[in-house]
This record gives sequence, C-alpha cells and structure tokens, in this order.
Amino acid sequence: MGISFVKGHGTENDFVLLPDPDGQLDLTPERVRALSDRHGGIGADGVLRVVRASQVPDAPEGVTPDVWFMDYRNADGSISEMCGNGVRVFARYLVDSGLAEPGELVVGTRAGDRPVVVHGDGSVTVQMGPATLRGRSSATVGGTAYSGVAVDVGNPHLACIVLGGPDELAGLDLAVPPGHDPVLFPHGVNVEFLAVLDSGDSGDTLRMRVHERGVGETRSCGTGTVAAVTAALHARGDDAGAMTVEVLGGRVSVTVGDGQSTLTGPAVFVAHGEVAPALWG
Amino acid sequence: MGISFVKGHGTENDFVLLPDPDGQLDLTPERVRALSDRHGGIGADGVLRVVRASQVPDAPEGVTPDVWFMDYRNADGSISEMCGNGVRVFARYLVDSGLAEPGELVVGTRAGDRPVVVHGDGSVTVQMGPATLRGRSSATVGGTAYSGVAVDVGNPHLACIVLGGPDELAGLDLAVPPGHDPVLFPHGVNVEFLAVLDSGDSGDTLRMRVHERGVGETRSCGTGTVAAVTAALHARGDDAGAMTVEVLGGRVSVTVGDGQSTLTGPAVFVAHGEVAPALWG
Repeated sequence: MGISFVKGHGTENDFVLLPDPDGQLDLTPERVRALSDRHGGIGADGVLRVVRASQVPDAPEGVTPDVWFMDYRNADGSISEMCGNGVRVFARYLVDSGLAEPGELVVGTRAGDRPVVVHGDGSVTVQMGPATLRGRSSATVGGTAYSGVAVDVGNPHLACIVLGGPDELAGLDLAVPPGHDPVLFPHGVNVEFLAVLDSGDSGDTLRMRVHERGVGETRSCGTGTVAAVTAALHARGDDAGAMTVEVLGGRVSVTVGDGQSTLTGPAVFVAHGEVAPALWG
Repeated sequence: MGISFVKGHGTENDFVLLPDPDGQLDLTPERVRALSDRHGGIGADGVLRVVRASQVPDAPEGVTPDVWFMDYRNADGSISEMCGNGVRVFARYLVDSGLAEPGELVVGTRAGDRPVVVHGDGSVTVQMGPATLRGRSSATVGGTAYSGVAVDVGNPHLACIVLGGPDELAGLDLAVPPGHDPVLFPHGVNVEFLAVLDSGDSGDTLRMRVHERGVGETRSCGTGTVAAVTAALHARGDDAGAMTVEVLGGRVSVTVGDGQSTLTGPAVFVAHGEVAPALWG
C-alpha cells in the first residue's frame, strides 16, 4: 500500500502533505529529510502530516481533539510549532479534499488551536497573533546601515524601510546575513527590507525581501510580512491598518491592530500521488 | 483528465518524467519551467517526455521510429540532446512500467539511437561515446592552480587531480566558477576535481566534485565522470580501464577504452502521480 502525498505551496514556501487521518504513519526525521530533499526526494521546505488531533499523543493541551492537526516538520527533520504559509496550504487541503467545509474552521497546531478562513477563491486568512514593537535598531548590508524597528511576532524581526525604493531593494546582496545588534537579538533575527510602492484605493503596497535566520533569503516569510506592515504603519504614525505585501514568491494581504494580526494569501497545489518505496524506506 | 508524472533521479540529478506514448502533450517551455521550479512546481533539473520516436516530428534522422524517444528539456525550458544520468532514469522507467523488457534496449535521443542495458538490480549501463584527450591545462580555485587535462566527451571538460587527496578536495570552494584558459575553452568548460581513494580488487575509486559551466557545482555529471576516469587512467600511463567514481549524489562505474566509454549507475524513483491543473495551466 503506497503512501499518498500532495505537494503545494503558499507564496512558494512549499510543502509535502501526508494525509494520515488515523495517525498510522511512522514519520521519522529520516523520512522527513528524504521527502524534503530537493534532488534525492520530492523536495520541500517542510512536511505537513494531516492527522486528527485526538491521534497525536504530543498535541498540546487546549487543542480541540476532533480538529485536524497540522503536524509540521522542517526539512531537516525537526519539529516546528507554526508556519503562516503552511497553515494556509493545510487548511485549503482540508476543504479541497472534503475533510472540512469552506469558510471558518480551526486548525490544531503545536502553538494551539488556530482559527482560519478558507475563501471561495482558495485563498486563506490566518490569525497571526499580536505584533509588538520593540524599539529602533539597524541592519547592515554591504557596509551600509539600514535603520529599522524590532517587531516581535512570536519570533524576532527587524523590519527596515529602504529609502531608495524598489531599485535599491532589488540591488541588496542578501547572500550573506545582514549585520545586526547581538545585544538586542542574542538568538539572531529575521530581517525584512521593504519599499513602499504606491498608495491606491486598496491601501499601500509594500515590496519586501527577507533574510530568515539560519536559512538565508527566502521566497516568503509569513511572520515577516506582518512585521513589515507593522513597521510601515508605525513609520507613518499608525498602529493599525491593512497593506498588501509583494514577496519574491507572490502577494499577500496583512492587517494589524487591536493586539491581533491576520495574513491572507494563496494556497496552491501542484501535484498529488504516491511516494515510491525507495524513498519511504 | 490529469497529466501523469513520475519523479526520479540518477545520482541526484533529478527529473520529472511525463509518459506521453502517442505524443499528445503540448509540452511548452513555460510548462517545463513550471514543472521544474523547485518552490512553485514539482522541482527537477529537467523534464523527460516518454514518447514513441515516430510521434516526434523533430527526431533526428537515424533514430529508429519504433523506439522510445527521450524528449529531454532543461529546467529553463531549452532542449538538450543527451544526459547520461537522465537516460538511465528513462530506461529504467521503460522497464519498470512494462514498456520494454529488461536487458539490452535502445533509447532514441536527439543525439541518435543510444544502446543501454537495464540490469536486474535496476542499475543501467549507458554507452557514452568516445572520450578524447586534448592536452594539458589548469583550473584556478581560490588563487591556487590545479593542473589537469582537457577531455572531450561530446562536451568540453577539464579534469584536475587534487594532490592533497580527499581532505583538500572537500575544502575546495566551488561556489565561484574555477578559472580556466579562455583560449583553449572559448565556450567555457566543465571542471572536475578528483582524488584517488584506494586501489582494491575492484579497481581504483575516485572521489569527484564538478563545476558545470553555466550551472555551478552539481551533485553529479555523467560526462564528467567519464572525463575524470580518462584523466586518472592517463595519469598512470593507461588509455583504457575501469574505475568507480564517488560523486556528491552517489556512486557510478565507468569504463574507458577502444574509442568508447560506458557509464553504469543507479536510477531511482521517488514518487508518481498527477500534475495539478494549477501547474499545467
């Protein structure tokens, strides 16, 4: 009996989903690494096991037992609590496969129950929790310092507005990690660079590039877009509002305010099938 | 009706195979790029369409009409004539799917009919054509010159023996292209660095790293392993022989002599299924 999989992505943050309603799969770190390997496996940033919360022995207290639980593993085999892009792909899979009705639903995660809305066009809105300003700092790229603000979105961010606009943003060399203040960020920091593109009827649009700590530049970072919008609103004197953010992997919408933030973006499926025995081992 | 696919690799040179016996698929460069994209698609170094040669209008003269034709596309959408790793995966797919009997068979390619042998263990031997010595030259890495020999395997190679052995080989920085003589290699060159590991009953084993022109360091390069063995034999005064080559993506066996060379190596399948409509467009 083959192991079924679905591959999909949210703004090019990509995942292998493994439907496992009754918790039968023995998803070892070795198998996660094999599945995620981009040359010897299927290839992904991570693996999302789709399992009833009641079948997950280490699900945190407070997760409703009969919701679908996102058992999220990083490509290196380690466990992660939450992922704003992954939960969109997970929620849309539930709806597309008939496991849940469209509209509002709850996804169980290691960070607790997470309410989401699956829209008619397949996009998904996720509650991202509070975004909290932590003061000014700066990041250094190629000898140039970019001033920014520290934002806590459950993980640490430093969001810097690039005054030279989209051209300067495009020219930044993020192949090496941006320099940051090690006293303010003792465990490292995710650094966002942003340019304000325009201000139309639908609100401001930011273009963003992001360097994720321990990873490098990525196509997208869900919490990073929340940090970027928080910083852009702060720069014009606002502490609440909505903006569109263009990342390398696509486009999302972010709202910030009242101690809460939301991220709305696409969830796309590219293939489904069965894992070959050579890979599952 | 979904588009079927198989994903597989030869020493981690990976491919999306599209079975298309009657030549019905409209495989545009855009679709090749979408399928090959490692974050927004399935992800691969290239796409191999499996089609009867008689159904390929641009198949070269001399290709037998009733053989299976490897319509090979690079990840960027361009057409390629041959690929030593790809043809192994292609040939094993023919046998595993029942389209051909195990043992000797002929694969049609844009470089003409290519005889191969699919062995009982799933490994495949491919005729790689002649490997011709073109004289001495050198490659420069991090300010150090490594002397080597130019070898023509249908494409240009420069194979350099690293005198410091495996440790020096492992330390080479191939993130930037090695320097080479632009007069001898006006169109660039693939550069192999090799260390001789041991000499046992099964013959010598080489460890190899390779920088492919226009690509960067890769997990494996079929013609590169032939060039490396040709150079290693030459260094000890032989013009024929057999060696095992360890590359980053696995292990292959190469024979050289009598104006012909062969490459024997693994072909592994990791998944099969259907391409989602969002990707095929």
